[in-house]
Amino acid sequence: MTLDPIPSARHRLSDLYAQRAHDIAAQIQGAAQQGRAAPLSLAFGLADPEMFPLQDLTNAVAEVLAERPDAALNYGPPSAELFEQLLARLQTQGITASRNQVMLSYGSGQLLALIPQVMVDPGDTVLIEGPSYMAAVRRYELAGARIITIPLDEQGMDVDALDVRLSELARANIRPKLIYTISTFHNPAGVTMSLERRRRLVALAAHYGVLIVEDGAYGDLRFTGEPLPTLAALDTEGWVLHIGTYSKILAPGVRTGWAYGPPELLERLQMFKSEGEVGPFMSHVVARYSADGRLEAHIAGLCVHYRQKCAVMLEAIARDFPSDVTTLAPNGGFVVWCRLPEDLQASALLPLAAERGVAFLPGTRCFTEGQGDDAMRLAFSYHTAERIKEGIARLGDAMHALRTQG
Amino acid sequence: MTLDPIPSARHRLSDLYAQRAHDIAAQIQGAAQQGRAAPLSLAFGLADPEMFPLQDLTNAVAEVLAERPDAALNYGPPSAELFEQLLARLQTQGITASRNQVMLSYGSGQLLALIPQVMVDPGDTVLIEGPSYMAAVRRYELAGARIITIPLDEQGMDVDALDVRLSELARANIRPKLIYTISTFHNPAGVTMSLERRRRLVALAAHYGVLIVEDGAYGDLRFTGEPLPTLAALDTEGWVLHIGTYSKILAPGVRTGWAYGPPELLERLQMFKSEGEVGPFMSHVVARYSADGRLEAHIAGLCVHYRQKCAVMLEAIARDFPSDVTTLAPNGGFVVWCRLPEDLQASALLPLAAERGVAFLPGTRCFTEGQGDDAMRLAFSYHTAERIKEGIARLGDAMHALRTQG
Repeated sequence: MTLDPIPSARHRLSDLYAQRAHDIAAQIQGAAQQGRAAPLSLAFGLADPEMFPLQDLTNAVAEVLAERPDAALNYGPPSAELFEQLLARLQTQGITASRNQVMLSYGSGQLLALIPQVMVDPGDTVLIEGPSYMAAVRRYELAGARIITIPLDEQGMDVDALDVRLSELARANIRPKLIYTISTFHNPAGVTMSLERRRRLVALAAHYGVLIVEDGAYGDLRFTGEPLPTLAALDTEGWVLHIGTYSKILAPGVRTGWAYGPPELLERLQMFKSEGEVGPFMSHVVARYSADGRLEAHIAGLCVHYRQKCAVMLEAIARDFPSDVTTLAPNGGFVVWCRLPEDLQASALLPLAAERGVAFLPGTRCFTEGQGDDAMRLAFSYHTAERIKEGIARLGDAMHALRTQG
Repeated sequence: MTLDPIPSARHRLSDLYAQRAHDIAAQIQGAAQQGRAAPLSLAFGLADPEMFPLQDLTNAVAEVLAERPDAALNYGPPSAELFEQLLARLQTQGITASRNQVMLSYGSGQLLALIPQVMVDPGDTVLIEGPSYMAAVRRYELAGARIITIPLDEQGMDVDALDVRLSELARANIRPKLIYTISTFHNPAGVTMSLERRRRLVALAAHYGVLIVEDGAYGDLRFTGEPLPTLAALDTEGWVLHIGTYSKILAPGVRTGWAYGPPELLERLQMFKSEGEVGPFMSHVVARYSADGRLEAHIAGLCVHYRQKCAVMLEAIARDFPSDVTTLAPNGGFVVWCRLPEDLQASALLPLAAERGVAFLPGTRCFTEGQGDDAMRLAFSYHTAERIKEGIARLGDAMHALRTQG
């Protein structure tokens, strides 16, 4: 064959990329690295593998493959039963939803990544809590959002401060796109928003026409007290997108998350899923596993289990940490948030902890602008009670060493 | 609380969407609907559920959950063994690849959706075969690509015609982004590109600096003849992205696809996956199932099985269709492509087929610009031999009826 003469410079594959691919690469390469750490890491909120219902899941797989192999293993939609179960769970929370108000995803993390694609143009304003879950916040930053941080306290997001900011923004003719909140068993702060604040937050969102993204990842893992209505349950005007997941109540590896919200918004989120609908297999398995009240019974067991582990960590902290390190006992979730005195900054503590083979998440990883060096997040979810005690003892030793040095 | 006065017009949620969310909605709502059809549909290439290795998959799940529950069910990366198996399979095809040249996805369909995001800005040129797999081509159209169709014949893509078009484009100073080809057991045409054309295609791509996207979805399902090297195996300069899937060789429901190609391109594809890496569970199950040569033995059985079903369909066509309907016996894959005489247009045939409770994919659904009314695609993959015969008999009846009417 004869080939047309072309300019002699060698072609580069990268010249072919779309502009958006150049842009995303620059953003992601600029973002912070997520490194894993020491042998005994309390940094990440993994689930406790001891609590995975292995036999029941194995049985569920066997039953699904025996009874409906074509539906589970061929091309096709996810399990209709799973949608029915989600609608039934919402009903118990006071939400009467229909099929088009619920969608499935590969974990709630996928939804947290899709939301900025649907909602955020560069320069748009997004309100978050400080501290917050940075894996979600980072997606807003990558989309070019201007992030405004609202502080939180023992009652959750400071809704007075939010009111002031929304009012200022409205006077400046800026309509924020959304408010991202972890209303129940906050990650990392452990707090739960009071009912009074929930009502005010929902009213503010409707008044200013701002979407609330309510991240309910930990909402079912309650140790004490009575459940409060979700923001989604309080909302009557369609300004709340509630996100849930089977990761904490069954297993992260099932990669099954879900959202409840306005159908038009769910449709658009679906449009940005490159893989289309979630695969049918795992949705059938989760539905089969969850049938006949088994999931609810399992969740009850998880609440007891994680409450005990949380208590182990809090007792160890009380014993081994300097007394001016303060914690607020969380009433649910996977983590304890510790406030550190001025001479025990997280950044100074990290290397001493690493020397002792233990890791934690410094508070700075939970804020966008460098705050949080006076805090640390400790996950009690993954390790055994013995390992938790060992980790806290080593951390306490690091704190005392830092104080002695200083 | 006091709420700031704001303009009295009611807020709309849709005012909050990002520009890209408005754009994608308009595009997708404008695209063709994919409706499913008659009771006996030969339109879609579903896998044969009789061939799902249910007991082996059930055992694989039980073994994975018993032996490595934490790796399979917690947060974490996909199975390292699966990557090793993919690299070993590539090695048997003459490709020595390393870990960073392979990525996993939720089915090959996800990759086909991600490629335009990385590669195509509006107005960019993309070359495809005519006919082609429209679910892939539609994604290029949605990204705003200018589609140029290269015809194909019994030897695959007409590389002479491609050469002419690439040369014309180069003279017009247009560098196309990519060439999308189904080189082996083409969907829908059933043909396999000759070795000579493969070599020329790879040389042309390197010469003009154009990416080849080689869709290898059916490549392992060979009925006759010897395997030809993939375009990826022939490429020495890094201009081929090869896409594979476990959908046809194991089950679509495992939603496990993969790509082999330049690491820098795979990195960018990964960046556009909203859900991050594929979940660990199914990757461990697929790897466990596939170990010890079991997958290769299963594929050998599939080749025999689908070859028999293809023969059943071709025999039924020879018996029941008018003799001037022509087919080319495919040497692999899931479908038969039929060329129709002038008086049996697919569009005219469709309603008569529907009256008889049978459906097919009209050729027009395999071209971008309305061509293909002289062709139909028939899938022999899903139904039993009896149902295939019944479907072809009904379609033959519809053809004779159309001819009698006309």
